[in-house]
Amino acid sequence: MITPSTEKAIKEPRITLVGAGPGDAELITLKGIKALQTADVILYDALVNEELLAFAPEHAVKVYVGKRSGDHTCSQDAVNQLMIDYAINYGHVVRLKGGDPFVFGRGFEELDYAVSYSIPAQVVPGISSSIGVPGMQHIPVTHRGLSESFWVVTGTTASGKVSNDVYEAARTNATVVVLMGIHKLAEIAGIFIKEGKNKLPVAVIQNGSTKDEKVAIGIVDTIVDVVEDKKITSPALIVFGEVVSLHPHFQHIKEFYDIVAEG
Amino acid sequence: MITPSTEKAIKEPRITLVGAGPGDAELITLKGIKALQTADVILYDALVNEELLAFAPEHAVKVYVGKRSGDHTCSQDAVNQLMIDYAINYGHVVRLKGGDPFVFGRGFEELDYAVSYSIPAQVVPGISSSIGVPGMQHIPVTHRGLSESFWVVTGTTASGKVSNDVYEAARTNATVVVLMGIHKLAEIAGIFIKEGKNKLPVAVIQNGSTKDEKVAIGIVDTIVDVVEDKKITSPALIVFGEVVSLHPHFQHIKEFYDIVAEG
Repeated sequence: MITPSTEKAIKEPRITLVGAGPGDAELITLKGIKALQTADVILYDALVNEELLAFAPEHAVKVYVGKRSGDHTCSQDAVNQLMIDYAINYGHVVRLKGGDPFVFGRGFEELDYAVSYSIPAQVVPGISSSIGVPGMQHIPVTHRGLSESFWVVTGTTASGKVSNDVYEAARTNATVVVLMGIHKLAEIAGIFIKEGKNKLPVAVIQNGSTKDEKVAIGIVDTIVDVVEDKKITSPALIVFGEVVSLHPHFQHIKEFYDIVAEG
Repeated sequence: MITPSTEKAIKEPRITLVGAGPGDAELITLKGIKALQTADVILYDALVNEELLAFAPEHAVKVYVGKRSGDHTCSQDAVNQLMIDYAINYGHVVRLKGGDPFVFGRGFEELDYAVSYSIPAQVVPGISSSIGVPGMQHIPVTHRGLSESFWVVTGTTASGKVSNDVYEAARTNATVVVLMGIHKLAEIAGIFIKEGKNKLPVAVIQNGSTKDEKVAIGIVDTIVDVVEDKKITSPALIVFGEVVSLHPHFQHIKEFYDIVAEG
């Protein structure tokens, strides 16, 4: 039960979905900060940097509704309902989500729920880790001569299976970025191996953009071992593609394979 | 010829590639603003909101190196060289690019050039229009039950032809976002028609996130006409996918087709 704030007149309910970016608090947008500064309530996820809560006014209610793959603190239905209840009773609800709200964030379900209650809702995009995290590691998702496109796929579908789109993506020349796929890395690498892409460069990046960032660089054949060596785990993303060969660490790997090939 | 600033000691050269986001000045990140605040020189593109230049210190040199498809004010080589010359002579160069530096922005070429001169370079990602612009129109690039992935492709390759990746993408269930493809809309729609996707929902958005934003919603069969009616032109992006059916305007289109189908 949420009881209305009694200290001041009840405000018009409204909801803003804000993308918090990949982890570094400074990767939120100015528009996102402005939304936080006018928030009466913030509902935030597990992958959101809590430093961002400091942008909110003192009176703002901050509610953790942590959700990450395999650990649903709140069900989606519960989050939706909280969002509505708080908006009606408190005013401006900022729904602060990791990355961008619409990249596997179930943001549209929340937006749709707000609309079904005729509560005005706005979207403030965020830096998606799919582009920004490789980028900060100097891996461009596109690059002339190497990649004319990039394809972003989830490794964890609602059914728990690897998305059929991963199978499709492995057949193409696109840079393939797999989010939430680290627990199925061996299975996903196997899909690329079946397409004969054993030597395709791969990067795995955990906690991208934060001080806890870990990076593994390899090829399809070796990436499972490298990730194990480096003890990389969730949350992490996987980048398959020739663009990974541009990473400074890849040069050593290439030299090693060239020697093996000559040997 | 660039002559060094004589007013103060020469600073250490460094370069920051900053993504300015899709157009709305408030869609730059806090990290991007901080880079601008310490800039000695800003090199900025055509699609960058010039309001952002106000974040720079008064002494900062602001140089327009506008580039957009078909209108190369500066060649890429010239931009690369300017960047180096300014860094050596002035200190901190911010290379301010529309969207994200690595989404068809040729950002890696600039980064690579900086590295070749041993000038420290950093990347600050930006909101890519590919995700953020549909999102602000309440079109999620992914949505449970409709799309488990999204594929971002350029409509204008170095050769001038439509990328082969567009042909591949048209065969899949991914949400397909085509950047810089508006001048080839008929050709690209034709590719989807060949795949039997005549009724697939399509959105075209010009000047996304700005006050001059224009939106066309239709299906593959009608989108060329709708775009012509609305006088939509470059810069614009195209979204193909069932997720476009979630746009509020699409309901009317669906009702019309249902009546036609019944009739």
